Amino acid sequence: MKKRVVIVGAGFAGINAARELRRADLDVLLIDRQNYHLFQPLLYQVATASLEQESIAYPARNFVRRLGDHINFMLTEVIDIDLDNKRLITTTEPVSYDYLILAAGARTNFFGNKAIETHAFRLKDLDDAVALRNHIMRCFERAAQTDDVEERKAWLSFVIVGGGPTGIEFAGALSELINTVIERDYPEYDAGKESSIMLVEGMDQLLPGTPKNLAEYARVRLEKMGVDVRLGQLVVDATPRSITLKDGTVIQGRTLLWAAGVKASPLADKIDAPKARGGRIAVNDYLSLDDHPDVFIVGDITYKEQDGKPLPGIAPTAIQMGKYAARAIKRIEAGEEPEPFHYFDRGWMAVIGRGTAVANTFGIKVTGVIAWLLWLLLHIFYLVGFRNRLIVMLGWAYDYVFFDRKVRLILNWTDTAKLPAVTPLMPEERQETPQPERM
Amino acid sequence: MKKRVVIVGAGFAGINAARELRRADLDVLLIDRQNYHLFQPLLYQVATASLEQESIAYPARNFVRRLGDHINFMLTEVIDIDLDNKRLITTTEPVSYDYLILAAGARTNFFGNKAIETHAFRLKDLDDAVALRNHIMRCFERAAQTDDVEERKAWLSFVIVGGGPTGIEFAGALSELINTVIERDYPEYDAGKESSIMLVEGMDQLLPGTPKNLAEYARVRLEKMGVDVRLGQLVVDATPRSITLKDGTVIQGRTLLWAAGVKASPLADKIDAPKARGGRIAVNDYLSLDDHPDVFIVGDITYKEQDGKPLPGIAPTAIQMGKYAARAIKRIEAGEEPEPFHYFDRGWMAVIGRGTAVANTFGIKVTGVIAWLLWLLLHIFYLVGFRNRLIVMLGWAYDYVFFDRKVRLILNWTDTAKLPAVTPLMPEERQETPQPERM
Repeated sequence: MKKRVVIVGAGFAGINAARELRRADLDVLLIDRQNYHLFQPLLYQVATASLEQESIAYPARNFVRRLGDHINFMLTEVIDIDLDNKRLITTTEPVSYDYLILAAGARTNFFGNKAIETHAFRLKDLDDAVALRNHIMRCFERAAQTDDVEERKAWLSFVIVGGGPTGIEFAGALSELINTVIERDYPEYDAGKESSIMLVEGMDQLLPGTPKNLAEYARVRLEKMGVDVRLGQLVVDATPRSITLKDGTVIQGRTLLWAAGVKASPLADKIDAPKARGGRIAVNDYLSLDDHPDVFIVGDITYKEQDGKPLPGIAPTAIQMGKYAARAIKRIEAGEEPEPFHYFDRGWMAVIGRGTAVANTFGIKVTGVIAWLLWLLLHIFYLVGFRNRLIVMLGWAYDYVFFDRKVRLILNWTDTAKLPAVTPLMPEERQETPQPERM
Repeated sequence: MKKRVVIVGAGFAGINAARELRRADLDVLLIDRQNYHLFQPLLYQVATASLEQESIAYPARNFVRRLGDHINFMLTEVIDIDLDNKRLITTTEPVSYDYLILAAGARTNFFGNKAIETHAFRLKDLDDAVALRNHIMRCFERAAQTDDVEERKAWLSFVIVGGGPTGIEFAGALSELINTVIERDYPEYDAGKESSIMLVEGMDQLLPGTPKNLAEYARVRLEKMGVDVRLGQLVVDATPRSITLKDGTVIQGRTLLWAAGVKASPLADKIDAPKARGGRIAVNDYLSLDDHPDVFIVGDITYKEQDGKPLPGIAPTAIQMGKYAARAIKRIEAGEEPEPFHYFDRGWMAVIGRGTAVANTFGIKVTGVIAWLLWLLLHIFYLVGFRNRLIVMLGWAYDYVFFDRKVRLILNWTDTAKLPAVTPLMPEERQETPQPERM
């Protein structure tokens, strides 16, 4: 009987661990509570109506099937981990393992601010992106239905918290959406002039931790696109209709995107090990636990320092960690010692808008069109699946040539269920969505 | 001041009425409670993971913008009609009209059977299709997690009621999904052998009202694909776990699709006029009301006979009616009498599977590959928007060549909110979906 490796989480870390085990003489089980791998870095494009949600989600079974008969998938949610008995408790059957690769990822961190948690949108899951898109598109429609200038301004005010890649990319994409498509679509008002986008960052520069000149380039480009960038500023409170800054400024707006931090998946609490910032699990040099060398903790749920600095919570880190864990298991099985994990920094990049991006890769700082083309190429390359690559590329090409966004649909998601609590827009929606009780 | 034509409903009838008014010297307002036009005939492909939902939904404002500055769109829901004061009551602002084109469409008709209404899926809206896709994909996952043969059979039993195009096309597409993709994706069981699809039709032939030999062709093809076709049979009861036929047979199954009939939109009740089968409004020869010649009733909400037979509730009828109403208004405005409406029967078609369809057009009966190519061409042609046509065509080509379905994702729709009532699959889903109260 082969030994069994269980991978929890089909994110970047999880699928790369599975891929690395494709020729291993082991039983591999990949578990996720969704049946797809999500390409998180492009969520903001779903939220701004550039990409269909299906383009950045790849069916897990499709992926697993291609790796070999020894790799399987299970749709379930892990709710507890019994390290001593090497067993996972799930919402369906318990699952035993010989090796565990925990890659359960991270969630949005509101740092205990309940008001913001209740009233802010987030951008971690596919649902988040579609809920945000629905909301934004509804705001544009509602703005078209009022003659009250102040009310219209409120529908058209967008506040984004967090000057990291997500905040920057979303702000840029939203500005483009407004200045191309929305302006053309809504003769009822002047979207370009009447709407406002504010990007709030607590540190004194965008993209904290990166060279100042790149951050400045990003700030200047965003401001040219009409984004009001506020550095050294915080959002401290929110209601359904307002957002309050640290300095007391109250913005009458109905859209707050919180992209200011992440914390570990709640599964981290089930592991008896030291925790670092955001509840992440502090691992040893082998991305493992001293008491449980058969358990590897990888991706965003992991806290690991290198050269005295914590590793960044980005896709390349997760990919390298996932691959490392798989290789370490293969070495242990071969009777060898694993080498300590070493993160290889390839740099990072963020796109700002049409033909504009910033990148810092292999010590070279690139801005403008070159950085943008680099971004395009890399993102296409890393998308899983030929069809997704093709569809995304065509979609981008179409939008680029025609200054259009074709996915600006309001779909009846769960978010509508709460709508009528404040102002009823379409009360019958809830009745119209069939919910047969069949499971 | 120009006269104002208000069109209620952006379905086939509504958008064709708007299109016909693109050069008219009139103010035109298109109202819908969704912000997109839905290509309903392809809903079954969304439900069977062939097409992205975005491919068959086209943003209403995009459509309206291209027709001219005199045509506008409003996202709202009409809840009452005041014919005497020429005014619509909506969930937002009231709307006045000089001419009204009511194209509010139809809903699924359960003929008063509450048990079926509660436990059956339907296929009229985009939400319906995605809810059904989520459910089906979950069934395949659940079947992989049980060793109990009877339970697995129940997860893999699908009952479809209604032998019209929707029922036939869905049954065929589901059979192909199972025999190509699912069989390959799930090594845990033999999907081809263990699953069952039953198509139940009350009349003694499929596609009631069409030539017997075409209907027979469809039946034979479906049975060859493994569909159990039951003619002269009815579904009389349903629970979350069973479906009961008229003859007393109880099927242990968790999926019931009801595609057995439609009734008029509830807006029909707001019009004081004689009603026909399914609550549809009986109109005069001008698709209008004798007391209100400025009101036109078109599409699936309309009851109209021609040569002693009611007109079929299909897209071509709606398209012709919508165009007619717009032309009639232009004639009235020009001081002319409108001609009575005449439906031109171009026939119909239904696709059964890969390279197999039936069509009856201009008196010619076609089956097999030729009918299938005809179906493909026509559906591509009628899809709104170049990008949608391209994406759909590529998607179909990909699936055809690779025997694949790439959209087999389970997205967290409202349907999951009810899941844990019977068997908890992923209880945390509900907490994970953010629902900021922002409207």
